[in-house]
Amino acid sequence: MEFTAKQIAEVLKGKVEGDPEVVVSRLAKIEEGVPGTMTFLANPAYTPHIYSTRASIIVVNEDFAATQPVTGTLIRVENAYASFAMLMELFQSMQSGKKGISPYAFISKSARIGEDVYIGEFVSVGEHAVIGNKVQLHPQAFIGDNVTIGDKSIIYSGAKIYHDCVIGIDCTLHAGTVIGADGFGFAPLEGNEYKKIIQAGNVIIEDNVEIGANTTIDRATLGSTIIHRGAKIDNLVQLGHGVEIGENTIIAAQTGIAGSTKIGKNCMIAGQVGIVGHLTIGDNVKIGAQSGVEHDIKDGDAYLGTPALEVGKSRRLYVYWRSFDQLAKKIYQLEKLLKKD
Amino acid sequence: MEFTAKQIAEVLKGKVEGDPEVVVSRLAKIEEGVPGTMTFLANPAYTPHIYSTRASIIVVNEDFAATQPVTGTLIRVENAYASFAMLMELFQSMQSGKKGISPYAFISKSARIGEDVYIGEFVSVGEHAVIGNKVQLHPQAFIGDNVTIGDKSIIYSGAKIYHDCVIGIDCTLHAGTVIGADGFGFAPLEGNEYKKIIQAGNVIIEDNVEIGANTTIDRATLGSTIIHRGAKIDNLVQLGHGVEIGENTIIAAQTGIAGSTKIGKNCMIAGQVGIVGHLTIGDNVKIGAQSGVEHDIKDGDAYLGTPALEVGKSRRLYVYWRSFDQLAKKIYQLEKLLKKD
Amino acid sequence: MEFTAKQIAEVLKGKVEGDPEVVVSRLAKIEEGVPGTMTFLANPAYTPHIYSTRASIIVVNEDFAATQPVTGTLIRVENAYASFAMLMELFQSMQSGKKGISPYAFISKSARIGEDVYIGEFVSVGEHAVIGNKVQLHPQAFIGDNVTIGDKSIIYSGAKIYHDCVIGIDCTLHAGTVIGADGFGFAPLEGNEYKKIIQAGNVIIEDNVEIGANTTIDRATLGSTIIHRGAKIDNLVQLGHGVEIGENTIIAAQTGIAGSTKIGKNCMIAGQVGIVGHLTIGDNVKIGAQSGVEHDIKDGDAYLGTPALEVGKSRRLYVYWRSFDQLAKKIYQLEKLLKKD
Repeated sequence: MEFTAKQIAEVLKGKVEGDPEVVVSRLAKIEEGVPGTMTFLANPAYTPHIYSTRASIIVVNEDFAATQPVTGTLIRVENAYASFAMLMELFQSMQSGKKGISPYAFISKSARIGEDVYIGEFVSVGEHAVIGNKVQLHPQAFIGDNVTIGDKSIIYSGAKIYHDCVIGIDCTLHAGTVIGADGFGFAPLEGNEYKKIIQAGNVIIEDNVEIGANTTIDRATLGSTIIHRGAKIDNLVQLGHGVEIGENTIIAAQTGIAGSTKIGKNCMIAGQVGIVGHLTIGDNVKIGAQSGVEHDIKDGDAYLGTPALEVGKSRRLYVYWRSFDQLAKKIYQLEKLLKKD
Repeated sequence: MEFTAKQIAEVLKGKVEGDPEVVVSRLAKIEEGVPGTMTFLANPAYTPHIYSTRASIIVVNEDFAATQPVTGTLIRVENAYASFAMLMELFQSMQSGKKGISPYAFISKSARIGEDVYIGEFVSVGEHAVIGNKVQLHPQAFIGDNVTIGDKSIIYSGAKIYHDCVIGIDCTLHAGTVIGADGFGFAPLEGNEYKKIIQAGNVIIEDNVEIGANTTIDRATLGSTIIHRGAKIDNLVQLGHGVEIGENTIIAAQTGIAGSTKIGKNCMIAGQVGIVGHLTIGDNVKIGAQSGVEHDIKDGDAYLGTPALEVGKSRRLYVYWRSFDQLAKKIYQLEKLLKKD
Repeated sequence: MEFTAKQIAEVLKGKVEGDPEVVVSRLAKIEEGVPGTMTFLANPAYTPHIYSTRASIIVVNEDFAATQPVTGTLIRVENAYASFAMLMELFQSMQSGKKGISPYAFISKSARIGEDVYIGEFVSVGEHAVIGNKVQLHPQAFIGDNVTIGDKSIIYSGAKIYHDCVIGIDCTLHAGTVIGADGFGFAPLEGNEYKKIIQAGNVIIEDNVEIGANTTIDRATLGSTIIHRGAKIDNLVQLGHGVEIGENTIIAAQTGIAGSTKIGKNCMIAGQVGIVGHLTIGDNVKIGAQSGVEHDIKDGDAYLGTPALEVGKSRRLYVYWRSFDQLAKKIYQLEKLLKKD
């Protein structure tokens, strides 16, 4: 998508100052602007950057007064910040505006497809799947048998949803994410071998959930692994079978939560955290990056470290940790002193 | 798949008590039963749940005597636990009962395909690949040139197997897993650049191995990365080039094992563990979650922590860690006391 | 691909000693040689292996004198090491020699495709995408709208590149990698809900970059996430929105770098490292495995541990850590001694 300064000025009801035919295809920060990008200046602290930015178009407040030459084309508007935010929304809506069903998609005859959907090339939709209105299935997405996807949800390229899983309304699943693979359950047999425990449950993802790229959420052994409404889960996260994630809880990248653990509402779990199985983590809990959680956590508590301890305690321990070498030397000195006595 | 209570009772040779036409499509735990699911009651400790469960069907022992009203339909059988286990197997076998070669799959002319296979939509099978009998290749799986897949193995959607790799009999590879990408090998050149070291080996996965979703197992530089029979590997695990995993060893999610490390038989490696390259880990070894292993480990040992230490030692250190702040204060107090003297 | 000893000897201008018709399809280390593989002996330290290797062909120096029987066929050459390296290159070039556009690929009409490309089955190439000369797009790769891919780059099976991203010349993206998914940005609303922050930027990958399997690199909110030329990134790595990776920097598997952090040139970052957002890491920095980095790091420094400390310091602390139980006991003893006084 390419736009001229003139076209953008018309949308923003602004005034062009410079070349009205200059073309942009992307938005940028003012300090990182390169030719072909458009940026904005609203915060006066960033004013010096307008004289060095290589962006082709800069949206500015109408009262902006340059004190040096500016190389890009200016578009003067009443409120540069609000105008730019509006352009971002517009860009986004144009990018996500794909429609129609590709003749190269495969849709099982028993599947039910809603209105105004986008189904891209090489998508596979299984038997009895139900695809809501305005759903987007990007190329090579896999929708298993009996899967339900709620209205307006977006499933990006190559995301895979195993049979019987349920995706709510207004969800976003990024590329490569895997929903509903078998939980990791094996019963020991004689002779050190293992027998697979059948994973007969599913995954339920409620409304307004976002799930990052290449994240994996396993189906429950029985019943459901559940991601409640509004939860946001980053890339490369692992959620084991039977896990439950509360409403509006946020989980950053590469965190892993083992089977049957329940996480409450409005929690913030940082990146690379590990939480063992069968725990109960309360509501409004915060867990710091790389923590290893072995015990239940009560509502509102904040934890950090491996093993995870209350955050104030944990920070205190790390302060001493940094001078552990000096502390150790002190002990040896004290010992020497006392033995001399 | 939907079944009525009557149909299920016939399979189980049980007696329906309640609505014989009620329909279920999924199995659930009794405490999580919702309409449309079937559950069971075998352990008396769970009896209170039968009066609150919303499951549509409950399989019970024939001598079960309700002391309050039950809303779901009961199916009375001789052994509720055994009957339910049988139903789980049945559900599973129906789900995995896909057969036939999709006209939307691509199979190279030189590939050899066994009998009774399932090859789903948009699967790509490379030159000279050999696909065993009863193999399932789910939609969008990628089978590279010269790959061999043993009888009855299941390759889920979007799993990718690079050229020359070998998959045994009765293996399961979950969605998005990548077998045989290049190992991470680069030789430094002058001027800080790197030259790629050709990765000319392959990956061999022996019989009865299960590999989780989005796990990555790199091909060896020369020779083979080997996963021995019966090993079970969870989601998002990374195995470097030339790694060897012993028989019946279990590796939990997000663990990473660097190049050329050999892991013995019957080991249990927990989640988020890191093991550096070129080590030898013995048989029957246990490694705790999030450990960082830098040294060889002998047969039968258990390790924990970063750096990983013998588990008893490591647990002892963590006990002191929790009171490190008090210990540090004691040191300062002792120092003060002695200096006063 | 299968070759006889005779064919290989012709290429190497060597002399066959043994069965000239024996066939090999893979290269192996001498100590791991199995029938059907070819290996070499150059380093005298490995000589004992030549009497036990099961490799079908062994390339040796012309002056090699066996002191025991050798089961494989020998090929005598002037320089065994150089000859074997040449064979590795040859194997590689044959494997990567795929050409032509599959009739089962989908290419948007507005896309521009270079010469001598390979585009495999079920690849999807979006609107206005530009694919350079000699590019390889392996089966099921996804190339979004407006994506540019430089000459000779290889995109393996099922890799996904979102709209507007730019890939340089001579890059390799392994299977399942996701380039340009939305950054993890959400603004809190009243009532604990979150509003998605539009991610309007892209990802730019410069020339000669290699990216491992199932790695995820998010697009910037505005501007670009940038991987500079020559960087090498392993499997299952997470790079957040707006991250910048310097030239020739190496990042090992399962490392995660949070949004807006800038990493300098020629750094070496080991596996499972976590780096928080908005940091600046200098050039020539080394970070040890599993480290947790919370602060900026200056050029040339080496860091280790969680929290990451200067490597010498960190190693010292870990030495004391191993005897922490004894140190703690000493403190209690000293305390007792002093209280007795």
